[in-house]
Amino acid sequence: MISFVAPSGTGKTTLVEKVITALDQRGLRVAGIKHDAHRIELDTEGKDSWRMRKAGADTLLVGANQLAWMSDSTDTPPLDTLVELFFSDADVVIVEGYRSAGLPTILVERPEVSDPTWQPPQSEILATVHPSDLAGTIAVIDRHLASLNAS
Amino acid sequence: MISFVAPSGTGKTTLVEKVITALDQRGLRVAGIKHDAHRIELDTEGKDSWRMRKAGADTLLVGANQLAWMSDSTDTPPLDTLVELFFSDADVVIVEGYRSAGLPTILVERPEVSDPTWQPPQSEILATVHPSDLAGTIAVIDRHLASLNAS
Repeated sequence: MISFVAPSGTGKTTLVEKVITALDQRGLRVAGIKHDAHRIELDTEGKDSWRMRKAGADTLLVGANQLAWMSDSTDTPPLDTLVELFFSDADVVIVEGYRSAGLPTILVERPEVSDPTWQPPQSEILATVHPSDLAGTIAVIDRHLASLNAS
Repeated sequence: MISFVAPSGTGKTTLVEKVITALDQRGLRVAGIKHDAHRIELDTEGKDSWRMRKAGADTLLVGANQLAWMSDSTDTPPLDTLVELFFSDADVVIVEGYRSAGLPTILVERPEVSDPTWQPPQSEILATVHPSDLAGTIAVIDRHLASLNAS
């Protein structure tokens, strides 16, 4: 897992998209995790799973290659458990938004975007990259994956 | 786990809603699972997780009490694994649409709705109930839960 962290407005997600596309085109199995502390709306009003949830059930909506889990009480399972369940085959897992997970991190910074209140996470910082530097970012990821394979 | 199965148009989901509400009001921890073979649209075009997926990554979108997993290749984990992960604390899990899972099943039937092509699943049939018979359905569930606790 490699975490991408940046101040808001830096262009992190656009860089992450390009990184995923580049790794995917090299034949790697790439997984992406986006953590969002806000309330996500996964369901659609009136659908069966929505009706189950409104009736008082924690709900799981399951399709062929996808699922949605919605609870009003239970905490989300830990990141490692989720990765093992859903992404055990992945060669690389790109993570956005799990600041407190202590993952190896690539910081994305652009001099024009400065936020004095922003703090980098307390994690191993693999590199600080400019959002336009796709090749440099891929090189950081390759070095990190090589170090994992070597250890 | 108790599966509800019915021909289309019987009023199964309305009964399931009432069952969940009744069990929830008794203080039971109720979980619901809806299986849908069709493509579910969990994500919203333009969101970060959608962009990750379009770029080629199997994607997990994680919130505080919910998550969505979307893949283009990997099969959904087995039902038992999902229940253990998400619903280990539940007193009862109400299931819709997992016909082939071989779960103990309540058939919902209404004489006015007949479909000659419809076949009941190859499962233990706990009872056949009318969609308006909430009390009878709850009694079937109570007997089943009692038999599980006794064994």
